[in-house]
Amino acid sequence: MKKTLLLLCLVAAPAFAGEGKWTPQQVLELSPAWLKAQGLKLPPNKLWDPKRGTGLLAGTVNTGGCSGSFISASGLIITNHHCAFGIIQEHSSPQRDLITGGFLAKSPAEELPGKGSRVQVPRAFTDVTAQINAAVPQGADDLARYKAVDRKQKELVAECEKRPATRCQVATFDGGVNYTLVDAVELQDVRLVYAPPRAVGEYGGEEDNWSWPRHTGDFSIIRAYTAPDGSSAAYSEKNVPYKAEFFFPLSTEGVKPGDFVMVLGYPGMTYRTLLADEMAERQARHYPRIRDVLGEAISLLEAEGEKDPAGKIAVASQLKSLHNVYKNADGQLTGMRRGQLVEKQRAAEATVVAWAQKGGAKWTDALQARDALLTEQQASAKTFERDFLLGMSGRLAQGPALATRLSRLSMERAKPDLERRPEYMDRELPRIKDGLERAQKNLFIAADKALLHAFVKRAQALKPDERISAVDTHFGKAYVQKDVTAKIDALYAGTKVLTLAERLKMADETPAQLDARKDPLLAFGQALAKEQAALDETRDRRQGAASRLRPAWRAAVMAQAGKPIAPDANSTLRVSFGKVQGYTPRDGAVYMPQTTLTGMLQKHTGEEPFNAPPKVRATAEAKKFGPWVDPKLKDVPVDFLSDADTTGGNSGSPTVNGKGELVGVNFDRVWENVANDFGYNPDVARNVNVDVRYLLWNLDQVENADALLRELNIRKGSPVVKEAR
Amino acid sequence: MKKTLLLLCLVAAPAFAGEGKWTPQQVLELSPAWLKAQGLKLPPNKLWDPKRGTGLLAGTVNTGGCSGSFISASGLIITNHHCAFGIIQEHSSPQRDLITGGFLAKSPAEELPGKGSRVQVPRAFTDVTAQINAAVPQGADDLARYKAVDRKQKELVAECEKRPATRCQVATFDGGVNYTLVDAVELQDVRLVYAPPRAVGEYGGEEDNWSWPRHTGDFSIIRAYTAPDGSSAAYSEKNVPYKAEFFFPLSTEGVKPGDFVMVLGYPGMTYRTLLADEMAERQARHYPRIRDVLGEAISLLEAEGEKDPAGKIAVASQLKSLHNVYKNADGQLTGMRRGQLVEKQRAAEATVVAWAQKGGAKWTDALQARDALLTEQQASAKTFERDFLLGMSGRLAQGPALATRLSRLSMERAKPDLERRPEYMDRELPRIKDGLERAQKNLFIAADKALLHAFVKRAQALKPDERISAVDTHFGKAYVQKDVTAKIDALYAGTKVLTLAERLKMADETPAQLDARKDPLLAFGQALAKEQAALDETRDRRQGAASRLRPAWRAAVMAQAGKPIAPDANSTLRVSFGKVQGYTPRDGAVYMPQTTLTGMLQKHTGEEPFNAPPKVRATAEAKKFGPWVDPKLKDVPVDFLSDADTTGGNSGSPTVNGKGELVGVNFDRVWENVANDFGYNPDVARNVNVDVRYLLWNLDQVENADALLRELNIRKGSPVVKEAR
Repeated sequence: MKKTLLLLCLVAAPAFAGEGKWTPQQVLELSPAWLKAQGLKLPPNKLWDPKRGTGLLAGTVNTGGCSGSFISASGLIITNHHCAFGIIQEHSSPQRDLITGGFLAKSPAEELPGKGSRVQVPRAFTDVTAQINAAVPQGADDLARYKAVDRKQKELVAECEKRPATRCQVATFDGGVNYTLVDAVELQDVRLVYAPPRAVGEYGGEEDNWSWPRHTGDFSIIRAYTAPDGSSAAYSEKNVPYKAEFFFPLSTEGVKPGDFVMVLGYPGMTYRTLLADEMAERQARHYPRIRDVLGEAISLLEAEGEKDPAGKIAVASQLKSLHNVYKNADGQLTGMRRGQLVEKQRAAEATVVAWAQKGGAKWTDALQARDALLTEQQASAKTFERDFLLGMSGRLAQGPALATRLSRLSMERAKPDLERRPEYMDRELPRIKDGLERAQKNLFIAADKALLHAFVKRAQALKPDERISAVDTHFGKAYVQKDVTAKIDALYAGTKVLTLAERLKMADETPAQLDARKDPLLAFGQALAKEQAALDETRDRRQGAASRLRPAWRAAVMAQAGKPIAPDANSTLRVSFGKVQGYTPRDGAVYMPQTTLTGMLQKHTGEEPFNAPPKVRATAEAKKFGPWVDPKLKDVPVDFLSDADTTGGNSGSPTVNGKGELVGVNFDRVWENVANDFGYNPDVARNVNVDVRYLLWNLDQVENADALLRELNIRKGSPVVKEAR
Repeated sequence: MKKTLLLLCLVAAPAFAGEGKWTPQQVLELSPAWLKAQGLKLPPNKLWDPKRGTGLLAGTVNTGGCSGSFISASGLIITNHHCAFGIIQEHSSPQRDLITGGFLAKSPAEELPGKGSRVQVPRAFTDVTAQINAAVPQGADDLARYKAVDRKQKELVAECEKRPATRCQVATFDGGVNYTLVDAVELQDVRLVYAPPRAVGEYGGEEDNWSWPRHTGDFSIIRAYTAPDGSSAAYSEKNVPYKAEFFFPLSTEGVKPGDFVMVLGYPGMTYRTLLADEMAERQARHYPRIRDVLGEAISLLEAEGEKDPAGKIAVASQLKSLHNVYKNADGQLTGMRRGQLVEKQRAAEATVVAWAQKGGAKWTDALQARDALLTEQQASAKTFERDFLLGMSGRLAQGPALATRLSRLSMERAKPDLERRPEYMDRELPRIKDGLERAQKNLFIAADKALLHAFVKRAQALKPDERISAVDTHFGKAYVQKDVTAKIDALYAGTKVLTLAERLKMADETPAQLDARKDPLLAFGQALAKEQAALDETRDRRQGAASRLRPAWRAAVMAQAGKPIAPDANSTLRVSFGKVQGYTPRDGAVYMPQTTLTGMLQKHTGEEPFNAPPKVRATAEAKKFGPWVDPKLKDVPVDFLSDADTTGGNSGSPTVNGKGELVGVNFDRVWENVANDFGYNPDVARNVNVDVRYLLWNLDQVENADALLRELNIRKGSPVVKEAR
């Protein structure tokens, strides 16, 4: 009996306890005994019941690039401060600076609606792999294969979205090993309830980003609203709080070292199933170029922001995101090198190749598929520099990015809906328009011109066989500083793209109408759009090839492993199982898994990014801990580490205990763990969570947020044991 | 019985176990039971027997600014790599670069003599407080008091030094609480036996300096020689190795966390007995100015060094020292602020004041003395900026520094020996001439001019009531860049000070002879020398006042404490008792007390300062640990921490176990502990030692230094238990 159990564990348990971002379906494939031994106190189907679409995972929402979770039956959602930053920024002005001061709605009437803020609540996951593969015509080439897969996906999504307020997507796992139809309810009325001052929510700023020890209170609370009948609806005064069937009650006991935790959420993208050579390209070129180009953009935005306080507010959000991506790239490079990840992948691959070669004819396809993938990789490498830069044209300067987006929108809208690129389909139009509108807040012309200038200069330096013709045509082939400056000035002086009302009109125009405007920035954008479209088609073909080849190769990898392998993250709902624990960042140093309020005070310098707000400082200095003190630490815990397996997109993920109570909110990984996108290293795989007791301390001792605490079922100043749901 | 013992401990034990740099005499005043409980396995009089001048402390030598210790009966001395850097540099050239490559004498015949290298071996310590105080005439003012004290000190020294090869000094403790005649034998023939490559001896360089975790092999071995009859003698081929009666056998077992250690040596200067206001001035002005002026000097030297490889070698030693002082100043400031040291001293002072006020008439003098010290402090603050800069004129640019030194030497030599400033007395002449000669190696005119330029510019910016008239006269009152450049060029073009033979002649000339030379740099140096002499007299008067006032105040402090207080460090021999232990540098992080060879490899980047030499790396990567592996760490230990109480001057101190065996060599303090010069903080008071097993691993596994290991009684590749002496 014991032996059987052990065998089950071996078969159904991952290589390292904390490894794996498991899909909802996989949770039920893992050994229940193993899950129980880890610390799960609920039956696995209380996490997710695929037949009914119920369980804790149903309370885990997608807030658009971030994760979040319901924490009350009345639609309260907790996510990261940096994930709610858009709403906070939207309502901030020099006169009412919510970024600096924070925000607390004393009653629901004071809650602030977020334009374009959306929350998706998961409902069902359906395996559609067979349907997708069946849709590919016999003998189709790779582009035709891509298009057939794409069309089938769109059809499935269109069918799925016939129900009201429904958002669907077909998610591709590991490049085509599996396709899953993801079905979610979209809530469109989302309001800000509570955000701490930025100096709490971002304490440590860029200096501490990706670091440990950390003392950041990276949380905000929002609330979803629906029409009075419970259906999803746009903002209206008549709307009522969303009724959440599944939510995470706040634990008032928090965590201690060794405790079991689960991190639920929407991890964005990982690359663990890439071939070693594919990883190597990222190490050799992709991340280094990100560092170059974004590093320059950051310098330019900061320099321009220093000259103009309003401009500084406008670019704050973009700058934050650039900093994040930059530091990520740096961490990927450091981690890949230190962790020898490419070398390890190469060794693992060699093991599978040797195993498959021994397996004979059965794995011939797998080995051929691998060779073909390598050939694809070499082909794409030839225009890497140009393609990379062309891709950046939509990310940095807002002017050309908006012009390009309008042009592509116009081009795509000329096609039947199902033949468009997914991001320009009719279902995306409200989102696109929201984006076009919100962009106004982020516009800062001086900075934008500097970014475009830098882009043009880089493009003009490309080799003869890798040119961006839009740049050659509009700016000439050789860089002459004053010419570029003059031409950019002319573009911005002559355009209406940056005028909100005109821009919204353009969103409805045909290519011919846009042409007729003779708008210079639009003309440049159209030229870029055409090149991007051509590049997209090349990439579509490659993706078609990958969807044909990678499943064959992965089949060998999975057969050789003989145990469940969690697929690469792809922004779909996942859960990871971990333990609260510290780590050894380097010889001679040990990082403890928890930090404290006193530690936060010790970092305070009075200057950004360590400038704790006076009321927070005064309360902490007076040691007004309330009931939020940890018995062992004898202090209010602030942040903690676990070895759960996370990546970008997990920001705002609920971190919950074995009973499903919220003990923290995930907001980062440690520096040494950034490269876990390419491989899980149990020695340094640590995610960073803010402790729920730091949130409660802020609400209770600093903000006196009595009404909100009551709603969260927390009696102010003395936590109550909450009833089980 | 038990109660009595406890009481004894309370009375005779320091506030914190690791606190206190105890004088040899004080070791016998501490409770033997407490010392035994700490881990001392020897009777205290085996450390020092004042009647016979014997014991472990007699094996602890002063190597001129650093500490060292005998490790064999045949005169081998271990000290830090950076303490032997002068000899290594002296024998290095682009053709034979011992700095980079390291050095190992295969036999005594290959050992390299160090010009001007000296080692002092302690012989006796005699309390002369009564004699000094009795020498002050009734009614003497403060300058007269200073002179009387000074003269008496010189007389005692002159008497003491009548014996051959004897170096004596009267050391002042806590500004005059005690005067002790220190009597030592000076060994004048010192040779380099072993130095690791700089990339071992300075691994981590400035980046790791004052830091932890550390992986530096900061050791070198030198040997003292005497005439065949055992008497001290200058270098001669006929000389024989010094016969050391007391030496520290190398422990082959090393240390583990919690182990008792003693650090013996010559700590330079600490300031724990200053009044809070005196400390505050250092925090507000002294260290900030050091940071300004030295930071600038470092930039200039580095920039000039980049242009000229020979120049880079010439300034290496000065640059190293500047970096060290700069980082020290930075650490003092950070530590004083974080540790609130001034505030704590103020509170402690207030306690003593309150206690003394209650004590009535008995302590009236003490309280008045304190008030008078504060008045002195305020007076000196008035010309702080000018005095600070004038003091720097002898430290940065070598040209004016040499010219000033020659001028002062000439001025002082015109006086009877006993009336001169101590550093210009006849007994110092050989040392001065050595220095004038060795300076040639460090000369790099381009850098020197840049340093002088920076000095002049700063002096010209001084306020009208704080001017340096030598600068006003030679360079004018207002800064004009091209004038200063031209005048400096003329100074250097017209001087013979920088020609070695001429400089040595000048050292024997009278002021009139120097005047007759019409040497422009010498003229500038003479002007600076005169102002320095005047400032010295002002400081003498202040020191006279302090010698009158501070003992009265300290009497109250000591009476109130009711237990032994170790005096401030003053470059005399001390011992500190500590334990091997890590610490918490900040919330959430813990530093372990030991680092390893594998950790050293992990830091290796292939670039300075983390560029481990190929042979070291290859041996480490092959895990050729030999018998030097630590059973717990399963690795060769590299460095370790203890809470022993150290400061600058302790560099090279032997760190020994309770049996008196060498377990390491002290070489640094951690950053958080730099400000312990102003107060011992048990939480962060950690000194950094290189583990003797890392030395042995280098000698045995990397260098195959068989002969040297045999001499150290270590059987290559397998340590032997050494016989007790």
